[in-house]
Amino acid sequence: MSLDKLIEKIVETQNPTVAGLDPRFDYVPSYIKDRAFAAYPNRLQAAAAAVWEYNKGLIDALYDIVPAIKPQAAYYELYSFYGMETLYKTIAYAREKGMYVITDGKRNDIGPTMEAYAAAHLGMTDLGGEKVAAFDADALTVNGYLGSDGIHPLLKVCREYDRGIFVLVKTSNPSSGELQDRLIDGEPVYLQMGRMCENWGKDLPGKYGYSGVGAVVGATYAEELTSLRSQLVHTFFLVPGYGAQGGGAQDAAGAFDRNGLGAVVNSSRGIICAYKKEGCDEHDYAAAARREALRMKQDLLSCIPQIRLPE
Amino acid sequence: MSLDKLIEKIVETQNPTVAGLDPRFDYVPSYIKDRAFAAYPNRLQAAAAAVWEYNKGLIDALYDIVPAIKPQAAYYELYSFYGMETLYKTIAYAREKGMYVITDGKRNDIGPTMEAYAAAHLGMTDLGGEKVAAFDADALTVNGYLGSDGIHPLLKVCREYDRGIFVLVKTSNPSSGELQDRLIDGEPVYLQMGRMCENWGKDLPGKYGYSGVGAVVGATYAEELTSLRSQLVHTFFLVPGYGAQGGGAQDAAGAFDRNGLGAVVNSSRGIICAYKKEGCDEHDYAAAARREALRMKQDLLSCIPQIRLPE
Repeated sequence: MSLDKLIEKIVETQNPTVAGLDPRFDYVPSYIKDRAFAAYPNRLQAAAAAVWEYNKGLIDALYDIVPAIKPQAAYYELYSFYGMETLYKTIAYAREKGMYVITDGKRNDIGPTMEAYAAAHLGMTDLGGEKVAAFDADALTVNGYLGSDGIHPLLKVCREYDRGIFVLVKTSNPSSGELQDRLIDGEPVYLQMGRMCENWGKDLPGKYGYSGVGAVVGATYAEELTSLRSQLVHTFFLVPGYGAQGGGAQDAAGAFDRNGLGAVVNSSRGIICAYKKEGCDEHDYAAAARREALRMKQDLLSCIPQIRLPE
Repeated sequence: MSLDKLIEKIVETQNPTVAGLDPRFDYVPSYIKDRAFAAYPNRLQAAAAAVWEYNKGLIDALYDIVPAIKPQAAYYELYSFYGMETLYKTIAYAREKGMYVITDGKRNDIGPTMEAYAAAHLGMTDLGGEKVAAFDADALTVNGYLGSDGIHPLLKVCREYDRGIFVLVKTSNPSSGELQDRLIDGEPVYLQMGRMCENWGKDLPGKYGYSGVGAVVGATYAEELTSLRSQLVHTFFLVPGYGAQGGGAQDAAGAFDRNGLGAVVNSSRGIICAYKKEGCDEHDYAAAARREALRMKQDLLSCIPQIRLPE
């Protein structure tokens, strides 16, 4: 019904971090690519196989210290249906290892089409009565531009399969304000969208005060983040923009409540490409990712209250 | 650089229709499903194979009278990566038959991630210098909530590979007004989004007055459609909501200019499930789709000026 599983995993690992698995081709170590391209004549298939090996190494290095991964769908679609198989395998493997999986697809549509997205990513595909999981993530990012018709089908699936969603509210990019900061009745669009999240969330209450309808709010807008935290008290935040996009732990800190909960902060390149920044041997990429994840954890913990379940 | 190819195809077929290939499982005739489920032990693979056969039959029956298809990504993701292979094959087959293909994915993201979506669906995937097409459609529907950072990467790919995009402006669903009708500086959000399309389109001018940046505007809002047509003179419209969603040819007519151009009207269920409405033998599904497409063509042509390229 909610994001409770994510919250419990954050408390267990004492780490409010999600590792963004955005496997750009140039992030994958050459030795992995060479092996894959020698094994598969089809180039997209080879690339997808390389990404799968890369992801598996990252998950093995992170699963006991990072509560969640967030694969970005674009970087799997990039390798066509072969890439989508890698997405499928990545989700299954991470969940098997106990991680919480947020598919970052920013999906959006209406009625039966949104039902299809919900079934595909969070629920089950109904094959004439027989039900089979297609991608089976714990949560999905979605875009609310189409209004409630685009969200209600998700809420139904979240209730049935105990899953969650994160709706785009205030994104981390420089031009996010072109629409999101414009005023409607004196309030910015992103705040109106945030209020819709609070409202949709009433259908998916959680044990720890946060509903199953979370919001994406960028770390690059620290003031808005703090203000939204105080106004959207039942809405858990997924916070992109830490690290590579310029947001720091201090900027992200406003997203957290007095129990050190209320948000999970994403780092993609920072973690999965740590070996390039460190300048270590590329064979050491997974260990470098773990070192960076531990550094980021300490960075965040130094800026937020101690993480604990609410009394 | 634009949607010129679509316009030329509409003039050639004298038909401003796009057939929405939204293959819900219960749309696929039983004889096709039975055959596929006997051939493949994996259920999702069987379903995806059935959808592929169904789509192929539809394309064979429509390609000489309908200018374009619009596969809806959700109904392919529904069958996991097997479904995405069917999407890939469907796009390739329709283009081989001379049809224009609009992938309805409503994708949205920023910067490098949006570049990945653009490469995946419209351009080429760069595998360390070697370029391979991942899905290779002519156009993609996108959501502009994130602002220009989400659109510029698409414009670049559209320019390089001569492709187009359709941005959600005013969607056909009942709750579309929750955000889209709200006023910003006295103008509804959808009009602001429409103006952004006009502006983005300046980068992708076309031969016939329409840019490569189209807009999705529902047939269910006839008044808004007519008003938008007069205000967004360089923006071609993709019009959902005809038929099953309640919009008629008269409602859609406002989307067209005095040359009978300016819009393409989508019908999904109406065409691909015509055999059910007709009550004919399911083996006749493709012929029924053709009959309905011809009926819809006449319906639209009776309400709009004669279709011709502008002088």
